This record gives sequence, structure tokens and C-alpha cells, in this order.
Amino acid sequence: MKKRPPIIVQKFGGSSVANVQRIRRVARRIVATKRKGFNVVAVVSALGDSTDDLLALAHQVNKNPPAREIDMLLSTGEQVSVALLAMAICELGEEAISFTGGQVGIVTDHFHTKAKIQNISAKRIIKELKKSKIVVVAGFQGITPDKEITTLGRGGSDLTAVALAKAVGTTMCEIYTDIDGVYTADPRLEKNASKLPTISYDEMLELAATGAQVMQARSVEVAKKFGITLHIRSSFNNKPGTLVTEEAKMEALVVSGISVHKGEAKITINDVPDKPGVAALIFKEISSRNINIDMIVQNVSKTGYTDISFTVPRAGLRSSMDVVRKVARKIRAGEVTSADDIAKISVVGLGMRSHSGIAAKMFEALAAQKINIEMISTSEIKISCVIRRRHAQKALHALHKTFNLHNLEKLQKKSEHK
Amino acid sequence: MKKRPPIIVQKFGGSSVANVQRIRRVARRIVATKRKGFNVVAVVSALGDSTDDLLALAHQVNKNPPAREIDMLLSTGEQVSVALLAMAICELGEEAISFTGGQVGIVTDHFHTKAKIQNISAKRIIKELKKSKIVVVAGFQGITPDKEITTLGRGGSDLTAVALAKAVGTTMCEIYTDIDGVYTADPRLEKNASKLPTISYDEMLELAATGAQVMQARSVEVAKKFGITLHIRSSFNNKPGTLVTEEAKMEALVVSGISVHKGEAKITINDVPDKPGVAALIFKEISSRNINIDMIVQNVSKTGYTDISFTVPRAGLRSSMDVVRKVARKIRAGEVTSADDIAKISVVGLGMRSHSGIAAKMFEALAAQKINIEMISTSEIKISCVIRRRHAQKALHALHKTFNLHNLEKLQKKSEHK
Repeated sequence: MKKRPPIIVQKFGGSSVANVQRIRRVARRIVATKRKGFNVVAVVSALGDSTDDLLALAHQVNKNPPAREIDMLLSTGEQVSVALLAMAICELGEEAISFTGGQVGIVTDHFHTKAKIQNISAKRIIKELKKSKIVVVAGFQGITPDKEITTLGRGGSDLTAVALAKAVGTTMCEIYTDIDGVYTADPRLEKNASKLPTISYDEMLELAATGAQVMQARSVEVAKKFGITLHIRSSFNNKPGTLVTEEAKMEALVVSGISVHKGEAKITINDVPDKPGVAALIFKEISSRNINIDMIVQNVSKTGYTDISFTVPRAGLRSSMDVVRKVARKIRAGEVTSADDIAKISVVGLGMRSHSGIAAKMFEALAAQKINIEMISTSEIKISCVIRRRHAQKALHALHKTFNLHNLEKLQKKSEHK
Repeated sequence: MKKRPPIIVQKFGGSSVANVQRIRRVARRIVATKRKGFNVVAVVSALGDSTDDLLALAHQVNKNPPAREIDMLLSTGEQVSVALLAMAICELGEEAISFTGGQVGIVTDHFHTKAKIQNISAKRIIKELKKSKIVVVAGFQGITPDKEITTLGRGGSDLTAVALAKAVGTTMCEIYTDIDGVYTADPRLEKNASKLPTISYDEMLELAATGAQVMQARSVEVAKKFGITLHIRSSFNNKPGTLVTEEAKMEALVVSGISVHKGEAKITINDVPDKPGVAALIFKEISSRNINIDMIVQNVSKTGYTDISFTVPRAGLRSSMDVVRKVARKIRAGEVTSADDIAKISVVGLGMRSHSGIAAKMFEALAAQKINIEMISTSEIKISCVIRRRHAQKALHALHKTFNLHNLEKLQKKSEHK
């Protein structure tokens, strides 16, 4: 009996299919993969900025368009992509067939514009792969059990790719994008930034959460859950990118990445009565107004009063302040202050688990640059500091050097030759 | 028990929804109809030229794109329209819900890009109408029993509207377009042309077949079959348009319209042996090459040889000639000649059934203008003549006057006051 070819899922983002030339390039890559002996399932996003264009149209006809109709509208973007990509593949002499999310049975719940996948039947895809066809699936979309079209929210196409990998029973999932892989820092901000050959799911999750917009956290979580190896790489060249797997291989690397996030502002409630339940009251009120809070810091109280600081999205600072002032009055706290010229800088690395002194090293490096730390928050593999935004660039550079990320490519070569 | 509101189907063509302003205007019209006490099912085409834009993209990635993928691609056009229109209706304070062809169960056969509707389940639509919602359905598209997306070919949205009218059990179907109704002649060619208040299905069919591109013949046939009254009217004003029903009401009108068709060329095979089976052989060969033939004229033979003339689409004249020359050699006929500077002018009218002498009157009118007639073809309610193209305008004007269509509006008023 002939052995069935291994299946690989390849996901292409909007910038990878932004025009006819790029669609053709993606088609060539898929065909090359097919001819190397793989069965290919391609997942595609909408062409370039077409999703934004459709949204702009929607807001022209309705200031507050119903979420169901938004999904009807936006899901056409990926349908256009898959049809064009399937045509481009056929032009190269391979057989291809495109599908909407609904057609391949990506079943979701009813939460329009942010639906969650409930289950996927891979039957239809497997049937076409057996006929040696390349299967092209619309990312970002699904269908409810009663045939309503849904979309999966931001990063939805990544999620489609990872979920399809699980459904068709492969661990190979390539995420093609407009960057070469995951870097130790944003190369636009740090010229010495290096591409990481591997990174762990947990590090990737922390990087996503701290502002490195390579992939949405949700897709990484699902990949981790099902043991899908993600290969994040560029659709514009053939260089290997970054593998996201359970454990990064380079033990030498304590910190694997540094991210800078400038989208937040800081709010401080001074002189909060330090009694049980007060913090809960504050954040219950705030979250009920749909304000997303990121970092929260509260110091040990010595006087029966404490200060509580937290960060919110900068765009919503003014409305957040209104809410927070009301809450502060209610709990008889003191003044409420804010700062919107902050940045959050985070060092992320699995190595922190086993190496001590990373925090101290980070604080020292910032102090050496005379950069004041305004908030600190840590997880098992991450340390984040809030600093003034004007120091962000300097801080990034100092930390990148301190944690030996400047010489990463040399280190990698050594590690490989060990 | 409360009486259920009557259902009306309103179909809007691409030009009626070509931009945001027009979508809003269509929404206002639908909402006005709803508030007059109707349940509205709206059927919409793709925005303006978007279908052509998508086709152009397709041909950029594949010179000969697979029909299945063309349907995946083109069906997005109407999906965009229905979502935007539903949003625009909601903005006006009425509830609306949009559907793809597949979602409302417009089931077709497998012939991609020219699928035929097999059946429609109106369940989902009726369910939403009962909730007092306005239902907006994507025209031009359907789904096969195994969930493949199909399109219905040219004029497909009209067909969707007519078929939905039948499915939801109404005889009221309004076709909104960029013209005011059906005219006695193309107003761009004949300044005295008048709008017809009513026209019969059969006349409408003949006009469609002879080149008046108001509606595709297929939709008119289906409307006739199910007794759906079509109201062809403008989406840019509130004037009544033309009602297409079983019998036109104005008995005085013998000829109701004159159409000019310039898209054809004439081929003549001279000296064809006048034996049984020869004509069959010729047209079997030609049709097997996918050449569409319109008029065929063969004269009575006196010498054992006859000349056969027929018209083909002008764009395909050269390839048709190659085929016809081969056939002519095969059947030992004489020379094959062609003319591509012809026009076909047709007079159409139910009145011809009961009024004699229409043909003579037509030929006389053309003769008075010194216009030579090259081919003649007649049906029960139509006479078509092929003439030189340069005479088309003059012929149209002469015939329009001869058959009293110049004074139509006055005639109508008299008829109404009788």
C-alpha cells in the first residue's frame, strides 16, 4: 500500500496576498511544497487592506452596524482570496479547490465578530487531499450550527490554520507573514536584533501579551494545547524562520526577547483604604465598563492606606478616568492621577525559571541609564517595567545588550556546533 | 387573527447599489414599502461594476480560471451588497437580515457559472418575515446539494427575484433598474420613444431576444410560467414603470416595441445542394463548435441549389467563417460570404396575432426610405429584418412613426379615459 504524503498547513496573511503578483508567488510556494511530496492545506487571509476597506463601507451606511451583518460582509474578503489563490495554483498545473469556513465545517458559537471554534470536521478536506488536490481554506471565518456566517476576531486566520492542523492530524503548521520570524526585539527599534531559530510557546505567549504583534495569543495557546509546531516565516524569501515548540533548544539563552509596548497609559488611585475587598470592588466596577486593564500594581501598605496603579489602553484613558474617579469617591480614596507618556518594556525568557538574578540585572541596566522604573510586574518567564516613553528606545538597547542578544547569531552557531 | 401583510419582492440591479448614496436610497425605498404595510424580500446584485472587477482579477491569475472557482469569487459580490443593504436598512430603524443564496436554500444543479435553480425552500425567509424583519437575499447565486457555491449566469438576479416570489407565494415582483420601464424603442436611438404602461410576457420575451436588454428572457419565462407580475421601474424616481403580465391591456396597440440589434454578422453559403438533410448537417456541424446562431433564412429552391444565410455574434465571425467554409466544402456548396455591417430591426406586438398586414406595412415603410431588406424572419408576434447597419437609425425612426408609437402617451391617456 502506498504511503499517504504528510500533510502540512500553510497560512498566508493579508500582506502575503495583497496583489496579483503576491498571490502568484504564494501559489508558486504552495506548488513547490506539494511537489516536494506534501499534501498542502493553505489557509488565507483577505487581500491586503480589503477587510479595512469593507469595514469603512459598513460604517458609511450604518454608524453602528449589526455584528451579524459585519460578519456577512467581512467573510467575503477571505472568500475572494481563496478563489483567486486556487485559480493561481491551477494555472501552475496542480489541482486546487477552495472552501469557505462553512464549507469545510468550521463550526463556531454564535458570538459574531469574535466567535469561538467549537469543532471542525476534516472530512471534506481529507477527501480532496486524497484526490491529490491542494485545499485552500478561507481563514478567519466559520459557521454556526444554523448556518450563520461568523468571524473569529483578530488573528482569526492563524487560529483557523492551527485548528485545521489539529483536525487533519498534522503537527506542521507554517505561518507566512511579512517578517522573517520572531526577533529578540523589534528590528525597527533595535538594529542589533536577531531572529530566534526557536522559541517556546510560553515565551511566544508572553511576547504576544507584551506587545510583539507576530501572532495573537489565542492561536499560540491552541498550538501549545495540541502540540502543533508553528513555523513563523516570511512569504517573501525562502529563509527558515522561527520554530515555536514546547521548549526552545538553546539552553544558553536566558532571555529570548525584549518587547516594547507604547499603547498604554497609567492610572494611579492614591490613598486607597487597605481593607479586604476594596481592590475587588475597584476592578469589578472598571471591568463592568468594558475597560481592559493590563498591569496592576499595589504596594504593601504601612499606614492603612495604599496606592494602586494600573495600565489601560491609551485610546480609552479619558473615559477610564471618569469611571475611576467615581469609583475612588465611592471607596473614599484620595486623588486619581494619570500619565499617558509611558512605555512598557518586557524581557521574556524560559531561562528565567532556572536562572536567578534576571530581575536585578534588568533593574541595574535601567539604573545605569538613569531610567526610573514606575511599575514592575512579573510572571514566571517575564519581567515588565513601566518607564517614561521617551526612555523606551534607550532602555531597549541597554537591555538587548545586557542580556547578550546582540551576539545571538554567533551564539547560535556555537550552540549548533557543540 | 391578524391578517399577515402581503409579501412583495423588490429586486435591485448593480447600478441601483453602485455606491453608498445609492445603497441608502434603496434602503429608504424598501423601508417606505415596509411602512406601507408590506413584507419585503429584497434581492440585490453586486455593487456597480464589482463583478467585472473580480473577473478581471481572476483573469490576471489564470488565463482560463476553473468555473467552480469563478463562482466562489463572484458570489462574494452579492454577499457584500446584501450585508451593506441590511446595515443601511437597520440604520433607518427597521430590522433587516441578509442571506446568501445558499443560506435561504436556493438549490441549483452543478453547472457552475450557469447553474439552474432546482428548488427553493422559503422556510427561512418566511420565518424572518413573521418576525417583521426585512429579508435581503443575494441575487445571482445558489448552492448545490453538496454545498458547492454556484452562480446563475447573466440576468441571474432577476431570476432569483422571480423564483423567490414564487417560493414565498406572492405575484408581486418589482425589478428596479436604471431605466424607467420598457420603451417602444431605445430612447437613446429614438427621441419619440414612449414608456409602455404594460406589456405581455410574450412581447417582453421577443424584445429580450431581439436585443432590448431590459431583462433576460429566462426570468421572463419563469415569471410567465408562475404568473408573477413583473413591475420594471427605476430606482432613481417614484414613477410607475412597466407592468409585465399575461396580456397587455391596450387593444389599440398592434406593435408595442421596436428593437435594434447591432451585435450580429451575416454569413451566406451560396449554391447549397437542395437535398433533404443538408441544412441539418450544416447547423449540426456549426453548433458542435459552440457557435450561437440566431436568424436562419433559406429560400425556395428553383434550380436544385439554394442559398442559406444566418446570423452569428459579430465577435465570433472570423472563427465561424473557418468552420462554415469547411462545412461548405464537405457538402459541395459554393462560395461562403459574410457581412458584418448589418443590423437587425424587429417589430414586436401581441396585436400581430389578430391584425394582418403588419409585415407589409413594415416592408413598405422601409422601402419608402430606400432601405434594402437582406433577411426576414418572423414569429407569431415579431417580424425581424436584417438591413445595412448604417440604415438602422433611419429605419427605427420610420417604423416607430409608421406604427403610431410616436403618439403613444396620448393614446394611453385616451385608452385610460374610455
